[in-house]
Amino acid sequence: MALIVQKYGGSSVADAESIKRVAKRIVDTRRAGHDVVVAVSAMGDTTDELLDLAHQVAPISAPRELDMLLSSGERISMALLAMAIHSMGFEARSFTGSQAGMITDATHGAARIVDVTPVRLREALDEGAIVIVAGFQGFNRDTRDVTTLGRGGSDTTAVALAAALDADVCEIYSDVDGIYTADPRVVPKARKLDVVTSEEMLELAANGAKVLYIRAVEYARRHGVMINARSTFSSSQGTFVLGAGMSIPAAVAATLEESAMEEPIVAGVATDLGQAKVTVVGVPDVPGKAAEIFTVVAKSGANVDMIVQNVSAAATGRTDISFTVPKADAALALRALAAEQAGIGFESLVHDDQIGKLSVVGAGMRTHSGVSATLFEALSTTGVNIEMISTSEIRISVVVRGDELAEAARVVHTAFGLDGDIDAVVHAGTGR
Amino acid sequence: MALIVQKYGGSSVADAESIKRVAKRIVDTRRAGHDVVVAVSAMGDTTDELLDLAHQVAPISAPRELDMLLSSGERISMALLAMAIHSMGFEARSFTGSQAGMITDATHGAARIVDVTPVRLREALDEGAIVIVAGFQGFNRDTRDVTTLGRGGSDTTAVALAAALDADVCEIYSDVDGIYTADPRVVPKARKLDVVTSEEMLELAANGAKVLYIRAVEYARRHGVMINARSTFSSSQGTFVLGAGMSIPAAVAATLEESAMEEPIVAGVATDLGQAKVTVVGVPDVPGKAAEIFTVVAKSGANVDMIVQNVSAAATGRTDISFTVPKADAALALRALAAEQAGIGFESLVHDDQIGKLSVVGAGMRTHSGVSATLFEALSTTGVNIEMISTSEIRISVVVRGDELAEAARVVHTAFGLDGDIDAVVHAGTGR
Repeated sequence: MALIVQKYGGSSVADAESIKRVAKRIVDTRRAGHDVVVAVSAMGDTTDELLDLAHQVAPISAPRELDMLLSSGERISMALLAMAIHSMGFEARSFTGSQAGMITDATHGAARIVDVTPVRLREALDEGAIVIVAGFQGFNRDTRDVTTLGRGGSDTTAVALAAALDADVCEIYSDVDGIYTADPRVVPKARKLDVVTSEEMLELAANGAKVLYIRAVEYARRHGVMINARSTFSSSQGTFVLGAGMSIPAAVAATLEESAMEEPIVAGVATDLGQAKVTVVGVPDVPGKAAEIFTVVAKSGANVDMIVQNVSAAATGRTDISFTVPKADAALALRALAAEQAGIGFESLVHDDQIGKLSVVGAGMRTHSGVSATLFEALSTTGVNIEMISTSEIRISVVVRGDELAEAARVVHTAFGLDGDIDAVVHAGTGR
Repeated sequence: MALIVQKYGGSSVADAESIKRVAKRIVDTRRAGHDVVVAVSAMGDTTDELLDLAHQVAPISAPRELDMLLSSGERISMALLAMAIHSMGFEARSFTGSQAGMITDATHGAARIVDVTPVRLREALDEGAIVIVAGFQGFNRDTRDVTTLGRGGSDTTAVALAAALDADVCEIYSDVDGIYTADPRVVPKARKLDVVTSEEMLELAANGAKVLYIRAVEYARRHGVMINARSTFSSSQGTFVLGAGMSIPAAVAATLEESAMEEPIVAGVATDLGQAKVTVVGVPDVPGKAAEIFTVVAKSGANVDMIVQNVSAAATGRTDISFTVPKADAALALRALAAEQAGIGFESLVHDDQIGKLSVVGAGMRTHSGVSATLFEALSTTGVNIEMISTSEIRISVVVRGDELAEAARVVHTAFGLDGDIDAVVHAGTGR
């Protein structure tokens, strides 16, 4: 008998029928002899509908009140889910973030979890009940107010509960049946991964893979929680995200093909069309200029990803510095830099939002050489030009033309031997 | 500067525009220099929609989960209302039943308030904020669970807050502009009352008047809270419900016509088509039979209103006992009695759901004789037959044929000098 935490996103509980389907899955897990704790999101579009109401009532929402408003969505879904489980003859109890002991700081709309004190959840489990917890929400002990955790909050709730309760596994359900070697909409031959390390998952999530939120994966890595990303709509085992020293349950391992148990060099290829490139042209090539530029950009609130500085042209004593930011942040960065043009002394700014980023991620890169050579070789054979390169210990990212990204991803996917035998049938979407 | 508690029902906050209108009224009260505490119901049909979802998910809802579900409705409306007030430049803070210190017993769905500890509300008021509280909900200290107060819960929340905060007045807003001498849909010449005593209000509410809930009026009477029933959609002063020793504010009194300040003998005529009559025919006329019958009925859960026992026919040694119950309870009572027919020894049961109850209510009955004579005289002139009679200290009720109830009410209303000069323009409905 294990303790299993399950998280169901909004699309999994969008209406009464969906809620009953999820209830049945939970009951099946309980019937198999396990203790079950469930974190649930608001039904379908509830959060967007509540936000829309807030905009109708007031142009700018007071953050405390917005959290009070939004947190009602999960209270509805969790109570309905508990009722559905009851009607199947099993005891279930729902708990708000505050009742579940999900203690956060006071940052409304993007609160950080500071402690989890699941006293009431343990009591309920000890009494044999299935526990349902409102995802996405917590409360602050000083202000005694309701908070929300921001994007990906329900995933984080589930992982934090799994950590606090020392659960055996945290199953995160969405409409996708796991982590793929690439986005199946871009690379039809993408394969579902049986296993991925949490380091790899972090790099994949940070570079365009949408199935899991980076924050939840990071929380899981830090607290030693095993995540199992799987689909509400199938019985596939999904993908296990393993931290240091973890191994997948023996029963599951036995069902996997042998080849999946070898560590591959490359786990996956991530693609991202959400970035824009800013180039600061003609920067005086003297010490401290890069620091000046990125101080200005940081203050603008833009979130810098890749940075490349060209070799200085000796004759002019000037150089170009390029960086990428999320498309939505580009205007912030450009405006801030333009205001400081005289002080920094650069010549001009170039903005390019037609780029695509391709990243190859794999823990095997640590011990295998030649990965970058394979990547560049594959791209060159299709005539894709590389505009920027950046690397981490287990990742190589390149910026290419946006309209060449899909072709580049398919070629690279093949070059690293990731192609499956058949086209992926399940197409990736996003859970909440 | 006064402390004013206001309650707005679901129809007053049915959509974004309504919420903004209510926010403006609250802000106007604050601008007039008063501290304001607001109890608010869920938006429009939210509660019914949530109940409908619950029925779709599970045929029978676990009471704890149903309360968790339903209590989310007020959290939505209160947060939106606070946002709307913010956007008008005033500080507002919303509080759940639990945050407001609304402590109840553990009877889910019909919880009784056992204590109100409005520590956080006082803090917010001291800091100059307008306070918004979720109506209809509380929490139990032992189970630490959310509870709901049942029908009329938001009115009770408002009155309980007014009592705990020692407010000057508790304004209960609905779509009706006060208490009328009769239901204007039945008696077109009904007049709005400027003042009614809480005793009279209790009798009127218990006998068919729908504007205020009996439970809230009783709470107000016991705790010395002055209620002012008024309309969200007009600036009319509404009706003041006065307990012992209370008088309406001098500023309001000055605006009233002189005649309204004299105590009338009869405050109003209430009508009720919601009762059914059960007659137990041929009951052995021996001591203890009535007790047997009403013990059986009480155990069935049916709520008995009027009881009449005919004089025994000496020849048979048997008598008939008639009583009225809410139409919905009649089947319960009939089934329970039928099961005990042999034991009690009655001959048969007669069920009649075509009755109407007319009640004349007035504190002046204590000191004025002749009220019953006037009532019976008025009814006899229109040929309305009286089937049952019951009286309290300040009320006389009669049961008549249901299809004669409206005509009877108009005649009686005229006989007691209650008719206004013009037909009532505002037609009564029900707030929640």
